[in-house]
Amino acid sequence: MEDIKKYFLKNLGEKRWNHTLRVLDTALELGSTHGINKEKIRKAALLHDCGKFTDKSKLLKKAGSFDIILDEIMTNNTDLIHGPLGARIAKKEFGIEDPDILNAIEFHTTARKNMSILEKLIFIADFIEPERQFKGIEEVRTTAYKDIDRAIILAIDLTIDFLILKDKLISLDAINARNDLIIRLWKGVN
Amino acid sequence: MEDIKKYFLKNLGEKRWNHTLRVLDTALELGSTHGINKEKIRKAALLHDCGKFTDKSKLLKKAGSFDIILDEIMTNNTDLIHGPLGARIAKKEFGIEDPDILNAIEFHTTARKNMSILEKLIFIADFIEPERQFKGIEEVRTTAYKDIDRAIILAIDLTIDFLILKDKLISLDAINARNDLIIRLWKGVN
Repeated sequence: MEDIKKYFLKNLGEKRWNHTLRVLDTALELGSTHGINKEKIRKAALLHDCGKFTDKSKLLKKAGSFDIILDEIMTNNTDLIHGPLGARIAKKEFGIEDPDILNAIEFHTTARKNMSILEKLIFIADFIEPERQFKGIEEVRTTAYKDIDRAIILAIDLTIDFLILKDKLISLDAINARNDLIIRLWKGVN
Repeated sequence: MEDIKKYFLKNLGEKRWNHTLRVLDTALELGSTHGINKEKIRKAALLHDCGKFTDKSKLLKKAGSFDIILDEIMTNNTDLIHGPLGARIAKKEFGIEDPDILNAIEFHTTARKNMSILEKLIFIADFIEPERQFKGIEEVRTTAYKDIDRAIILAIDLTIDFLILKDKLISLDAINARNDLIIRLWKGVN
């Protein structure tokens, strides 16, 4: 943890580190009802934003150094880069090998089809950590403790509404995640 | 045209035929400013809904007879089937060979990436024909005559809002269309 803290304070700033600690607390609290290994939650939560360089040229350079291929959506909505980049950094610089943790980092911004429970946990903890404040967030918070799949659908819906309002691009992974979760809810499958 | 009318009245009902005529008028009116061959517009508009069987078992049987592979989204949102099915019927039963007309029929419900001007015209004419009445439609109507790409983005946004409200699945073709049009608008490319 000290290594990660040092890395954050050096590269990403104190604000990002404080957010990370809130996501960690939220994920541990939520995760306690799902029987996931706490160490996995800790690693995924602490590292989920390790690729979030605010300087755009640094972000692009780092992504290039890991040979991340940017699709049109990522190129035009650079906030989508830090998840995939973070997974690479977590592996190379922090020695994370568990694919479940790496996926939780990679897809924490968009979600995706067929998410593991750890992936769901990190996605939703990042979305509802206590300092997040916007219209609709309270319903997501309450729902997260009762039905994490429904909470993720609500979170994606809020995100889509926001992207439409701002005339921004919409991630296909997010749409795939939403469709997948809705179909599973209809079928009663988790 | 008499053949098509006969087919509609026999298979799809008078209401569907009347809608078709309104889409035809709208498409011709809109199309006059885009210099597209009127005969192409006529064929695409008259046939755009030729696969719209309201009886679900008939719709699925017909789709099966053309070996249309239904993805998860189509299986769970059967309204997305009539476009692809209509294109097959237009080819087989009405002898349409022009791929541009067939694509305009196939993608008139969802839109898609890289649409031709005919495809855009049929999509938006179907969306704004005079009997369509819902919140936001007037802005799409006005915009369609000034900037068809922006009108399609608005139409897709309204559709997504509706699908979110109804907890329904969202078509990936629609998201791809929207992202593509937004990127083109940013770049100033049509």
